[in-house]
Formats: sequence, C-alpha cells, structure tokens
Amino acid sequence: MPKITFRPSGIAVDIENGSLLLEAAKQAKISVDTPCGGKGTCGKCLVRIESGNVDFENNGLLSEDLVDDGYVLICKTKAADEDVVVHVFSEFGEEQGKFSHATEDLLLIDKALLPETKDIDPLVKKVCVNVFSAEMGDGLSDYDRFKKSVMENIEGKDMEFPLSLLRKLPDVLREDGGKITVAFFMYSETIKIVDVEPSDTSFSNYGIAVDIGTTSVAVRLIYMFEGSILSAKTDYNAQIQCGLDVISRINYARKPERLLELRKKVLGTINDMVDEMSRRSAIDKRSIYNASIAGNTTMMHLLLGIPPENIRLDPYTPTVYDIPLYTATEVGLDINPGTAVYMAPSVGSYVGGDITSGLLCTSLSNQNEDISLFIDIGTNGELILGNEDFLIGCACSAGPAFEGGGIEYGMRASTGAIGRVCVNKDTGVCEYATIGGVKPLGICGSGMIALIADLFKTGWLDPNGKLNRDKKSDVIEIEQRNSRYIIAPADECENGKPIFISETDIDNLIRAKAAIYSACRVMLQKIDMEFADLAKIYIAGGFGRYLDIDKSSTIGLLPDLPVDKFSFIGNSSIIGAYMTLISKKHRDKQQTLADNITYLDLSTEHEYMDQYTAALFIPHTDSDLFKKKN
Amino acid sequence: MPKITFRPSGIAVDIENGSLLLEAAKQAKISVDTPCGGKGTCGKCLVRIESGNVDFENNGLLSEDLVDDGYVLICKTKAADEDVVVHVFSEFGEEQGKFSHATEDLLLIDKALLPETKDIDPLVKKVCVNVFSAEMGDGLSDYDRFKKSVMENIEGKDMEFPLSLLRKLPDVLREDGGKITVAFFMYSETIKIVDVEPSDTSFSNYGIAVDIGTTSVAVRLIYMFEGSILSAKTDYNAQIQCGLDVISRINYARKPERLLELRKKVLGTINDMVDEMSRRSAIDKRSIYNASIAGNTTMMHLLLGIPPENIRLDPYTPTVYDIPLYTATEVGLDINPGTAVYMAPSVGSYVGGDITSGLLCTSLSNQNEDISLFIDIGTNGELILGNEDFLIGCACSAGPAFEGGGIEYGMRASTGAIGRVCVNKDTGVCEYATIGGVKPLGICGSGMIALIADLFKTGWLDPNGKLNRDKKSDVIEIEQRNSRYIIAPADECENGKPIFISETDIDNLIRAKAAIYSACRVMLQKIDMEFADLAKIYIAGGFGRYLDIDKSSTIGLLPDLPVDKFSFIGNSSIIGAYMTLISKKHRDKQQTLADNITYLDLSTEHEYMDQYTAALFIPHTDSDLFKKKN
Repeated sequence: MPKITFRPSGIAVDIENGSLLLEAAKQAKISVDTPCGGKGTCGKCLVRIESGNVDFENNGLLSEDLVDDGYVLICKTKAADEDVVVHVFSEFGEEQGKFSHATEDLLLIDKALLPETKDIDPLVKKVCVNVFSAEMGDGLSDYDRFKKSVMENIEGKDMEFPLSLLRKLPDVLREDGGKITVAFFMYSETIKIVDVEPSDTSFSNYGIAVDIGTTSVAVRLIYMFEGSILSAKTDYNAQIQCGLDVISRINYARKPERLLELRKKVLGTINDMVDEMSRRSAIDKRSIYNASIAGNTTMMHLLLGIPPENIRLDPYTPTVYDIPLYTATEVGLDINPGTAVYMAPSVGSYVGGDITSGLLCTSLSNQNEDISLFIDIGTNGELILGNEDFLIGCACSAGPAFEGGGIEYGMRASTGAIGRVCVNKDTGVCEYATIGGVKPLGICGSGMIALIADLFKTGWLDPNGKLNRDKKSDVIEIEQRNSRYIIAPADECENGKPIFISETDIDNLIRAKAAIYSACRVMLQKIDMEFADLAKIYIAGGFGRYLDIDKSSTIGLLPDLPVDKFSFIGNSSIIGAYMTLISKKHRDKQQTLADNITYLDLSTEHEYMDQYTAALFIPHTDSDLFKKKN
Repeated sequence: MPKITFRPSGIAVDIENGSLLLEAAKQAKISVDTPCGGKGTCGKCLVRIESGNVDFENNGLLSEDLVDDGYVLICKTKAADEDVVVHVFSEFGEEQGKFSHATEDLLLIDKALLPETKDIDPLVKKVCVNVFSAEMGDGLSDYDRFKKSVMENIEGKDMEFPLSLLRKLPDVLREDGGKITVAFFMYSETIKIVDVEPSDTSFSNYGIAVDIGTTSVAVRLIYMFEGSILSAKTDYNAQIQCGLDVISRINYARKPERLLELRKKVLGTINDMVDEMSRRSAIDKRSIYNASIAGNTTMMHLLLGIPPENIRLDPYTPTVYDIPLYTATEVGLDINPGTAVYMAPSVGSYVGGDITSGLLCTSLSNQNEDISLFIDIGTNGELILGNEDFLIGCACSAGPAFEGGGIEYGMRASTGAIGRVCVNKDTGVCEYATIGGVKPLGICGSGMIALIADLFKTGWLDPNGKLNRDKKSDVIEIEQRNSRYIIAPADECENGKPIFISETDIDNLIRAKAAIYSACRVMLQKIDMEFADLAKIYIAGGFGRYLDIDKSSTIGLLPDLPVDKFSFIGNSSIIGAYMTLISKKHRDKQQTLADNITYLDLSTEHEYMDQYTAALFIPHTDSDLFKKKN
C-alpha cells in the first residue's frame, strides 16, 4: 500500500493502490476545496506532486506544462504502486489558513463583554452527593434513596431520571459506598438528571462551543470548571458538496432522504472534530456535558433534520426560532448522550443564532444608550441596528461574490488567493501579494474590493464599473461589450493561465456592495438617522478580517467614516457560542436580545429597491454621502 | 411445504419439510408447555398426530403403545413431506383454558370499586387545537404559533416538545389549515407533548392494560374514550424458557446479555399480543396512547432491563419501587413511541405492582373501617392486611407446588389436569374429573388440595401427611419409606402411565400451605387479631379460581371460616391495571395504597418460623384453630 504524505502538514496515510488521492486526503482529514464535487471541472483542487508516481486523468483543464511540473487535480488522481508526497495549497485547519485561533478571536472582543470567572454557570452542572446506605426494612429502593439525597442537595420541586440511568444506578450507588456525582440541569423547577457516576467526578465537566456556518464549522473545546479553551478547530461544513449557499441547501433538502443526508453531513463534520479534539486532550467524550451551538436559521433546521423549505416560501415562516433544549442523542452529537444541548435562538428566516451570538460580542448587548450597527458580511449580509431601547434586524442577499463565487477567478481567502493589490496609475499594471506567498490561484473578496478601489481611484474604472477604454494598457483586454483586466499574467500563475477580472465580475461585486450599503441606509432611515450618528460599526465574519476599511468606503460598501468607528470582531458567532456555553448571564442576555429584535423584511420595503438602485455606482449616485473621499 | 393444522383451534401454518412441529406451533402462536426447554425429557409437550406422517425421535419416554396410537412429544417431532393434523392438549389462549375473558373478570369485582364513566381520565389525553395562521412579518415560527395555541387551550406552566415532532410540525400545521390534535400528558405543571396529528383525531385514543406474571402475560385493549374493553388476550411469558420462578430468572439475569434476553422475551410476548389485538380491531398502533403495566417487582425490573439481583441480596433493596413515567420507546413497547407508560408501584422485594393493582379490587382500597385480608396465592404468597388506618404487607415462599411444580405429576390448571376428585372411604379409589374432560395428563394445584383433603377426611392420610399403611388398598403402593397413591390407573391416562401422588409430593404441598397460613397468622398477631375478626378474605390469582374453600380449610391452607367471608377476585392485577389505565382517581388511589403499606420481612420475624413449624400438620398442630372442621 503506497503511503501518501501531505505537505505542509506532514500528515501521512496509507491507501490502496489505485485509490483516489482525494480519498487519502479525506482519511488524513486534509481539507481540499472541491466545489464541483470531484468531477474535475472546477480546477480548485489543484495540488502538486512533489515526489512519487501517480495516475492523473487530465481532462484538458490543466496545460501540458503544468502537468509536466507535477500539478494535478487531486480529485482525478489515483495512487500508483509508490509512496507519494503531495503539496496541498488550500489546506487549512488548525495550523494555518484563514481560520483564527480561539484565544486570538477573544482578543478582538471588548473585555467588558466577556464572561468573568464569577459568571461561569453552565447549563449542565455536576454535583457530588452522598447517598445514604440501604438498610433492611427501610422500605426504600435505590431510586428512593437516590432521589431523597438529590432533593436534599439540589434545589428543585421535582426530578426526572431517564431509564438508561436507572439501569446503572444499583452499581453506581454501590461502587464507592454511596458517594456519587450527579450531572443535571434545571428545566423550570424540575431537576433533570443527565448522568450519574460513582465517586466524586464533579471536576470532570467539559463543553463544546460550535458555530455552524454555511461554509465552515468551528468548534472550541472548553473546560467548564474554569471556562478555559483547551483547543480550537475549524473545518469545512461537509454539506458544501450539496450546495454552496443556504438556498441551494434548502432546495437540496426537499426530499426527506436528502434532508437526512445534509443532517448527517454536518453532524459528521462536528463529531469528527470533537472526536479528534477530545482524543488529543485525552478527554472521554462522555465527560462533555455541555454544548452550545450557533448557526443561521437554515443551518439549525438542517442540523435538527427539520424540513427547511418554509424558510424561503411566502410568508417566510421557519419551523423554529427559539429551539427547545434537546438531548445530545436527539440532536446526534457524539458527547454525553443524555446531556442537554443549548442552541442559539434565531429571529428571522435570514437572521439566525449566529447573529444573536455575534451580538454578544458588541455593545448592542450591553445596556447602552449609544446606537450602533452590527454587520455580518458573507453570502448574506445580516445587519442589526440599535441600543438598549430597540433593536432592528434585517438580511440582504449579497450573493456569493465576496466569497469568490460567481467571479471567474474568485476564490475564498485561502492560500494562493490574491489579497493585496496596488495599481499603477500610469500603466494600469497591478502589483499583488497572495495569502501564503505562493503563486496566485485566484483572487479573494477583500482582494477584489481593494482592486476595484484602486482601479477607480487611478481612473482605470468609471463610476458605472466600466474599464477605461480611452487609455491604453496591456492589462486591459477589450472584447466587444465586455472587457477584462489582467491581474496576473499567465507565466506568474499557478495554473499557467492569466488571472483576470471582467466587467461582469465587477458588476457582481457592485451589486453585492449595493445590497449591503442600501440595507444599512434603509434601517437608518427607519429611525431617522445617518451613518455619522452611529457610535460604532461592528464588522463580523471571516470576510471582515481581511477587509480594508478605506478601500471599502472608496467603492461604497462601507460608509465614509473615521476608521476608529469600525471594529472587526472576527467570527463573533463562535465567540458568542463560547460565552453562552459557560455563562447563564450570557444565555439570558442572548434570549433577551432575540426577543427584542424587530425583524425587518426588506423584500416588503419599497424604499429598499430605490436605495439599492442608487447604490449601483462607485461609490454611489449621491456623491454627498462620500464627500470626504472624493 | 407441509401444512400443519392444530386442533382444537384449527390454526394452520406451512413449514419447511424437516422442521420441528414445535416451530410450527410457535409460528401459529399455539402455546405448548415445554418446561424442559425442548430437550424431550419432561414429556409435558405430549400431542397426538391425528393424520399425516411425521418423524418422531422417541428417547424412550413414551411407550411403544402410545407412539402407535399417534402420541408424540412435539419438541422431538419433525414434519415429513405430508400435511399433518395435530391435537394439542394444553393449548390455551383466548378461546379456552384457564384464562378468563376480561368482562368475566370484571364480574368478580364489587361494582363500587370499578371506575365510573365520570372517572375516565387517562394519563395521555388528546385535544383538538386550532393553530392560527402564519402571517408575513408576524415574527413567529411554526413552533411559536403552535406553543401559543397549546398554552391557550391546555392549562400548564410550561411545555415540552420532542425533536421528532418538530420535524413533522410544519406539515401537520399546514395539512388542515392549522386544525390539529395534540396528544399530551402533564408532568408537574409541564405539558409534555406526545404527538401531533393533523385534523381532529381526539376520539382516536386507545390503551393497553398489561399484567406481567411470572408465568403468563395478560393484555387488554381498551377504547379510552369510553373505557370499554375491545379485546383480551393471555399468553405464556416467553421468559419461562429461562426459568420457571422469579429466583431462577434473577439468577439467569446475572449476565448483562441474559438480562437483555429476558427483557426482549417479555417485550416480545407483550408486543406480539398487542400487534395481533390491534390488527383484529383494525387499530393503528400509533393510536395506542395509553399503557398501564402491573407486575411483581422482579418482572418490572426485567421489563425495564434493570439488574434485579439486589432484590434477593441482603438488605433486599430493589432498584425501584415507584417507577417514573417513561416513554413507550424507552420501555420498548410497540405503541405510540413518545407516549408515557404508567407502571404500578411496588412496596417490597416480593410485594409488587401486581399486588398494589390487585388491592384496587378489594375493600382495602376503599376507605373502610373493617379489617380485611388480601391473599395472592402462587409460587409466592403475597398478603396484605389492613383497613383505612393501616396496611401491612408481606410475602412468603410457597414454592411451585400449587402450580404443579416439584410434584411428579403436577401441572398447571390447563386441559387434561385433574381438578376434581372424590375418594371412596372404603376402597380408597378415586373418582376424578379433568379440565376439558379429556384423558388425564396430571393433577393441578386445586386438584391436589381437594385430593389431600379427601384422603385426610376418609382416613387414608394422617395429620403427618403419611398414607395409611394399615388399611389395604390397590391404589396405595408402599415403597420403603415413601409411598404413593394412584389417582388414575395407566389405562385411563393420556400417556399410558398411572398418575399418582407420592408422600414426598404431599410433603411439598403441606409445606406450601403452611407457608401461607403461618404468614397470615403472623400478620394477624402483629395487630392482635384472629381470623374470625376479619371482615373479608380476598383470594386473588389464577390458582384461586379453582380453589375449594371447604377443602382448603380441611388441609389448613385457609382458615376455618364461613364461605361468605371469602371472595375470589381472579386475576385482580390485570383488573387493577385496567382501572389505573382509564382513571386518574384509581392511579392516585394506588399510589396512596403503596405509600401506606408497611412491608414486613418475614425472614427477620422469629415468630414466623415457629408458626410455620406448627402448621406442618393437617390441618394444624393446634386443632382448636380448626374446631368446626374436626
């Protein structure tokens, strides 16, 4: 069996002769981008064979030169009878790539918003209880003695005890002379017993915070006793294979067996990560007694196996916003089976628990008079505006442009993506830098924003998003009504073809930024305010991390305000999930936030279409809005 | 494939050529007694082949003559390539045998004790609810609208809703314009939702009452709306194959896989019956929303898969007396999966839910000044004594003699059992009658009591249980220290051998009756009373049905009191289960009874051993106790 070693991680696996390298990558838990589902048509799974012989079936997508240099599509490459070393470009996980480490995440958040040690109060607690011994003729069963001791130690009106625990109760009671540890949570005034263990194991209480994004899933493993983060991991949501955005997932889920498939895929993603993290930390998964999950409304429906179609059908009524507590077994999480899972509440079809979690990372969650704005920019833009007195939320469809979708050379912000650019005013030629410093594979969202801003400022692009056809440049190729701008010439690129952006691509980007900007304006108008009146603008999401504020306001995505008004809070959803995992105060806060948000449906707001149309220029038809810039 | 037809039921099944007829009987759900587990050593599965060729492997147990007459042991007989008609002697089920029909059962009970129509109040109720429609911008999910409507229609502080129902909620709400039916039960002040169905199906609510006996399992199917019994069925508890009495079952259950086996066996027995009954009544099993189960402490532990060994280990502490509500899925019942199962509370290792159910059929459950005694006679004798002010309960081990165990020709009270006898004073010869009027196969418990009483009264048996060796009789065979009495000569018997009772058998019976009688006396002495002070003596259990009071007091099993003081109440456990199934008043009553019973452990009562020794005579060493008789 040939051994396949992946660089840069160094992870190696043995596979059968003739197996696909993609299988080896899956075995090794190496994430490789395969948006086409392994058909060999998107070219995004380009890797380089550093040594060893492989069997690559080139369907013409890669040039001969490239193949001669050792480049292959991993989805179309089989192992031959030889060990192989593969260099993966887009690999990401804990070690590298766009996903940040948990502790780093926390640094982005105002300390006053994070739970303090005194706030640590998990949903599922563990208490050591001494159950008195059985005596002949006392007329008490094991369960009677257990219940009596529990009711004396834990405040509650009633108790619930699953049958599975009754089966092990006699042994647990007798193993250490009646000294046992009870894991429980309160529901109303009922003590719900989650598990019983012999001896005092009250210190052994772990938790997972989970953020289920449409694209990626983040998990943090926490020691509940101290609220400390033991490890952090992010991986692609395995549902990607069934569609890139929420709408395509909702469509995919129409058949019951496909809904089940989606459910199993995301559970697989989470459980695999939990498995690896707990093994590395040498933690028994049965000791994971707490879980807090945040995700958008569709992700939560899919996780729970609830048909999501009503989310997108008039009158846009999801099945559930405020998800009741369910057991890990019901949900399908591979942690202590009887434990209760907390899930962040949603407030609308497109304003989900990821947003109510993210809000915990902002001053909007603190009783604050100042009005601030929270924006999560992704395929959907989600916005919350308000202060202690009111909160309005809405969502707009930006399309996948910011994440590289619908753009010919667009890609996510991973290794090989052009992220920074500088356009020469005279020649129009672009200097660029890629993530990871490797040869360019494409351009990511923040790179595109920077590029358009630069092209606009240097006069190579007009307010309508058309390339300047009057000035001559080697990097502008005019093709009838559509023109394209060469960012990187063929000889500099990883796959031997030039990387460019077309006017159609630019148009997509303008529509995306117009959707976000106009949604903000409609919300502000509702309360008779201007951007300048805002105390703070919070920008959440992985995309926000690489965003250049100055360039974003040059193209009219963000308003023209001083930089210190903006605050990047990263993946605020996972941080919010972490907060609600360890602190009851934050769970209560999140429920209050969810209850207080008025959901604005932009599709019913006439004003929105007008605002949107006005924003389809660079930076805007109303140039007064971007005075300082121009 | 040969067709095997069973008489008298007429049920026919096809089996593979070469298969055991015992398999065919199982397929046809014909109960055949196989206490030896099909090894061909006990001879109790004797059947007669009426037509057709079979392949019988005679190990010498049956005489040549018998085999020539067509008699075979069903456990050692294989089908040949021919249709066969088999006559089964001990078959029982709904149609015949010792198990009585439900409505007949009810006739034995004082009408004042049965639930009235106004008492009908099942644990799981169904209510039709109109859920208001979703409207654009109302900010409400399906679950929000559902919960709001439920909380307006059902009184409660909180609600619990399983994830499985959340998955079907969107479709259920939309199928009939929001008109739905909610099945629920109350736990404390929480409304626990069991199921949701579209349209108004509130009338469709069925229930099962179940009595799990060590030997047999009884099920009644009830239409909850009226409390009417739709059908009744009794079958052997499939656990019999793993041991005849509770102690051997507890021993068998020591290994976890065997505990699971016992659990599956009894669940199989119940679920098969429920399946057949619901098919016959054309009822969807999902509409069975209520279940009430009664059984002794060991049977309940085995049903729930709880290790039972502490029941018999010092200090005799079972895992549970008062069983919490568990779902049908948890318990393993094949009815509506989310519904709650009510299980009768036990009060001691050997005073179980069958007794607290049975008590509901007696004046002990009605606030009554008069002191009465309840006796359930079987392998264990269970006794409850008391009135509205106090209740004492105890159990004694009578051994299997009354049910035919440990007696050479003993058998249960089924077809072929000698039930009635009359001994000729002069010749000692016995005239007898069998159940079903067929040739005798053995003698049942009530037959033995009658026989011993007759032998004693006619002078053929002395107070020590020894046969009269002075008088000569053809039916008394003296063999050194042990003698035997021929009840039926060989030529009259089904299996061609004489049926007799030996002095060892008689000794077993005397010990059984002494155990019961002395337990009653110890209890009475505790409260300084005599039998004559009792208002009523209730006799429960299948065995009681055939008991002759006069003969029972002749041998000293029952006290010497007027016949009208005694009341036979049959299988009072299944009737109690029926009462608690349909009526909250009776469930409450049962809980009160269980709480009020003081459990007396006879093994710690010195007085018991003295009383027991004194009772090892016919009728008793203290002849004053049976003055009227002698």
